[in-house]
Amino acid sequence: MADPIAPLQPPFKVIEWIGDAVRGRLRLLDQTQLPVNVAFTDCRDAEAVWQAIHRLVVRGAPAIGVAAGYGMVVAAQWIPDGGDFLVGVEAAAEYLAGARPTAVNLAWAARRVLERARRTVSGDFNQVRGAMLEEAVAIHDEDRRLCLAIGRHAEPIISRHAGIMTQCNAGALATAGIGTATAGMYLAHAAGRRFTVYCPETRPLLQGSRLTAWELQAAGIDTVVITDNTAGQVLKERRVGMVITGADRIAANGDAANKIGTYSLAVLAARHGVPFYVAAPYSTFDLTIPAGDRIPIEQRAGEEITCPFGRRTAPEKIRTYSPAFDVTPTELITAVITDRGVIQPVNEANVRAVLGR
Amino acid sequence: MADPIAPLQPPFKVIEWIGDAVRGRLRLLDQTQLPVNVAFTDCRDAEAVWQAIHRLVVRGAPAIGVAAGYGMVVAAQWIPDGGDFLVGVEAAAEYLAGARPTAVNLAWAARRVLERARRTVSGDFNQVRGAMLEEAVAIHDEDRRLCLAIGRHAEPIISRHAGIMTQCNAGALATAGIGTATAGMYLAHAAGRRFTVYCPETRPLLQGSRLTAWELQAAGIDTVVITDNTAGQVLKERRVGMVITGADRIAANGDAANKIGTYSLAVLAARHGVPFYVAAPYSTFDLTIPAGDRIPIEQRAGEEITCPFGRRTAPEKIRTYSPAFDVTPTELITAVITDRGVIQPVNEANVRAVLGR
Repeated sequence: MADPIAPLQPPFKVIEWIGDAVRGRLRLLDQTQLPVNVAFTDCRDAEAVWQAIHRLVVRGAPAIGVAAGYGMVVAAQWIPDGGDFLVGVEAAAEYLAGARPTAVNLAWAARRVLERARRTVSGDFNQVRGAMLEEAVAIHDEDRRLCLAIGRHAEPIISRHAGIMTQCNAGALATAGIGTATAGMYLAHAAGRRFTVYCPETRPLLQGSRLTAWELQAAGIDTVVITDNTAGQVLKERRVGMVITGADRIAANGDAANKIGTYSLAVLAARHGVPFYVAAPYSTFDLTIPAGDRIPIEQRAGEEITCPFGRRTAPEKIRTYSPAFDVTPTELITAVITDRGVIQPVNEANVRAVLGR
Repeated sequence: MADPIAPLQPPFKVIEWIGDAVRGRLRLLDQTQLPVNVAFTDCRDAEAVWQAIHRLVVRGAPAIGVAAGYGMVVAAQWIPDGGDFLVGVEAAAEYLAGARPTAVNLAWAARRVLERARRTVSGDFNQVRGAMLEEAVAIHDEDRRLCLAIGRHAEPIISRHAGIMTQCNAGALATAGIGTATAGMYLAHAAGRRFTVYCPETRPLLQGSRLTAWELQAAGIDTVVITDNTAGQVLKERRVGMVITGADRIAANGDAANKIGTYSLAVLAARHGVPFYVAAPYSTFDLTIPAGDRIPIEQRAGEEITCPFGRRTAPEKIRTYSPAFDVTPTELITAVITDRGVIQPVNEANVRAVLGR
């Protein structure tokens, strides 16, 4: 059966399973080498998967979840057949979940494959390994469908504009599919629409210039890299008609945490009357948190600012302040585009109505 | 006679003349090596001065003017005594003025030293060289006094705040004195005030983290480096009570062109009710331009974004958009602090009243 999503995929595979459950391996696009090298790394044991997640070879909450699912299958290849098999699978789930502490999807995906192993009653342990691979593939496919569903809601909005701005990477590289913020772009482009995407480079880790610009360029979408400092001027000159970003966590009222600098973009967009959209799957919402001021903000190491790319660019012993995220308040968000529909205007009633919770 | 400005100088010399007019030399702090190395380079002929200005060993319009003044003296050391001496001095002025085409101060300072040579009637050519050095020193001293005058007007404003944000480098390193945006900081610090300065790193050339953070740290002022993306969050958290930047050109109505990203800071400051100041000497005003939309905007090379620090951070052949400056409109500027007084509110009548033009 033809894969209806396949033609819309970018021309690279972020995550791929090669072979069968018993002798197969997890192949990852090494994102630490982008955009200089397009290199893939194969993970053949749990430690290799742990390292790949830890070192950001694979990043983005959805992509990490998918990698962890396959990581469980790789781990199970090294667990001896016998009565202690499930004990080994449990240990693998716990081990992989610790590769990065903040990504919810990681522990969730590992546990889901563990549960599948538990449910599979068979004296043939390769059959259990096969069931685990099925579950990992199911996680993978679900993530692709979630991206596609976001894209279908975003495409009509994207198609109205000749210029679009995004921030950081909420793209195919952060998911197993066509991304979240980028999903509508890929669908609109596949439908023949032509537009230009402005990518702020997104200091400190430059995931806008290193990753988003790379994947959009690879897909044939016209892309312009700007410094983060230039976003205000681009909006002032009306080069873009909309801004669309991903989100790391969205509170019940619609306040959205995302990569640092997103808040500034939203303020600048509002000043110029440019609509500001957030694209995220239902799983990004945290309805236990009423508003954005309750979202904890991770702090990054100063070295990412003072010694980027192995070269010192600030004086020794200088103080730094480097929150990884900021929170964009509901009043600056035109709409949140989810896999289940578009939340607009953004308020708690509409969040719950669209999510069905 | 004691120098009344000396105790307020930062503990480094951006520009220094060593020796007499006949055998002396121009010593420059090599700003391309900051903050990694504090190294000085001596210029002993016109070509060395030309190269130093061209390669940004010395930068900032006021500092470039001072360097060009001394560059004329160095050039005159190589011009043979005799009837063609002034012809050689004229050629040197033209040569130095071409080191960077946009800095007005460069040609102005070279011409001023040339005129002094023309006015000095003497058969002793070393006496002419001595007069040229006097003129270069006069330019140097004037620039220091201009900075000090700005600082005296800025100090009471600075002293009201525990946190201050600036942008790029409008500091001592950009002038022969205590800077423009930094002048009030140095005076307030010398008067015993304690405050924290937030320095956005200012991509693409990182003059905030490389230069401003370095000179403020060297002066003992508490300094925090942030990415440009973090400025909005710092303002939102009320870590700063004011923003103060320099300017590259100010139109008659008060619209101010400055390093890219300044406009975004002004928009963010306005959203949070944080006053936004511009500090500049009278010579930065261009009263022939009625408003900011007439200020031409220089474009920078894409490589500064795609290959910073010698390492590729964006895909090959990607498009870039890199204006060097943006224009902050009058309505976002609380006041312009000049050597002649504070322009507030900012409008053409007040600009002309304070400048006396």
